[in-house]
Amino acid sequence: MKQSGVDSQKIIRRKQDGELEYLPDDLTIEEPLEICIGRKTLATTMRTPGHDEELAAGFLVSEAIVRIRDEIAQISADRDNRVIIDLKDGVKLKLNSTRRFGTISSSCGLCGKTSVDSIRQNFPAITAKEIRIDIETLLSLPEKLRNAQSDFARTGGIHAAGIFGVDGELKIAREDIGRHNAVDKAIGRAFLDGSLPLDRHLLLVSGRASFEIVQKALAAGIPIVAAVSAPSTLAVTFARESNQTLIGFLRPPSFNIYSHIQRVILT
Amino acid sequence: MKQSGVDSQKIIRRKQDGELEYLPDDLTIEEPLEICIGRKTLATTMRTPGHDEELAAGFLVSEAIVRIRDEIAQISADRDNRVIIDLKDGVKLKLNSTRRFGTISSSCGLCGKTSVDSIRQNFPAITAKEIRIDIETLLSLPEKLRNAQSDFARTGGIHAAGIFGVDGELKIAREDIGRHNAVDKAIGRAFLDGSLPLDRHLLLVSGRASFEIVQKALAAGIPIVAAVSAPSTLAVTFARESNQTLIGFLRPPSFNIYSHIQRVILT
Repeated sequence: MKQSGVDSQKIIRRKQDGELEYLPDDLTIEEPLEICIGRKTLATTMRTPGHDEELAAGFLVSEAIVRIRDEIAQISADRDNRVIIDLKDGVKLKLNSTRRFGTISSSCGLCGKTSVDSIRQNFPAITAKEIRIDIETLLSLPEKLRNAQSDFARTGGIHAAGIFGVDGELKIAREDIGRHNAVDKAIGRAFLDGSLPLDRHLLLVSGRASFEIVQKALAAGIPIVAAVSAPSTLAVTFARESNQTLIGFLRPPSFNIYSHIQRVILT
Repeated sequence: MKQSGVDSQKIIRRKQDGELEYLPDDLTIEEPLEICIGRKTLATTMRTPGHDEELAAGFLVSEAIVRIRDEIAQISADRDNRVIIDLKDGVKLKLNSTRRFGTISSSCGLCGKTSVDSIRQNFPAITAKEIRIDIETLLSLPEKLRNAQSDFARTGGIHAAGIFGVDGELKIAREDIGRHNAVDKAIGRAFLDGSLPLDRHLLLVSGRASFEIVQKALAAGIPIVAAVSAPSTLAVTFARESNQTLIGFLRPPSFNIYSHIQRVILT
């Protein structure tokens, strides 16, 4: 069976012993997806095909275009790398905040905004009743996310994002060549299920935590963000101001906590 | 001496033995940079501070806004995370292709375009006289690029981009939290030096080669692109159509060639 998100192509490989071989090799698929509101193209994003409706829905949530499931009348993907979203009658598309989108690369989740401050203003800081996660549960998460990925994804560097309950249960796992797309797909699934805000959940990403990852978690109301690699300075600053717990280098048995430590049970 | 692009912050670390410690930790700086043409904001990009004029110049080249050094009258960075570019009298800013930019994340180099085809049309395929690189030279490049990076950058995951001559000489090396920014900085430096097109050069990136990396190389006229990690399917397709040689997984003594093998001397 052909694996989703992967394409095999003939390449020339120089092997360890210096010999050359001509062989098929698996590559992560990167293709544009056009996200349309009715007949209007809102954005084109470079992504790995699959879960396109979720990606589009998560994008709308991250960009503060929709906040609740009921604002969307219909969402459907066609075969031309396009998702068409019909908003409910009376839901007004805030054109000022959206007309700046163009094509977005597979590694961008922040296009179209004019300043970091404007992003902060779109989403208030977390105020939900406090949740807490214990260390053993936290340390178990990276393996659970890896187990949900395909072999190729684990070795080939496709990014993964997982939404977990604070009891450690993996609720949603999604993959993409773009880190932010994997997060949008996971959040989009939760949104389409009517599960937002995810105020009792944790988001884990397989790579680094840049500003955009923390911002997307905030858009979904997620109070704890964990990353297998490093956060950026701005990710830390943003998490502090948004009352989000940010964990980095989550590599059992170690991890770092960068903000709002009170949500991790350290004893 | 404080290292550029790095900020130290107090964090809580859970160590291998389960003990907790409160210690300073180095983080890669991610901050917005506003790129302005005169008084007009063209784009805001998330980047690691440093070489901001080069980043802005490389961005303009990659976006086909300028093609030759003489089109820029002045370019200057101020202390407010802003680069102001004054175009020469008579150089017309193509507003149609640029007004769609907003804020661009540290991992995006493709914002503002409405389709992949429109990018292709901006830059013709490579037609320069053929150059060739031998295997030993090719295999020597990753170590040269690593040696040009700081210790923190090598371990902390800051992306690096290097422009090499086909004789293996490293001409320009730049770093950034965003892969595309590192490439823009390197290309921007060459542009400001009046060295474009780089039709006798090779671009090496420390991570993966997505579509945007190959496209930026094409904007600078670079015929050979090498990456330490995997290319995407679209990077391969684009390189084939643009007459660019694309090399991936360049990890001595091995590598893969995905397109236009004639530029690598295999014997």
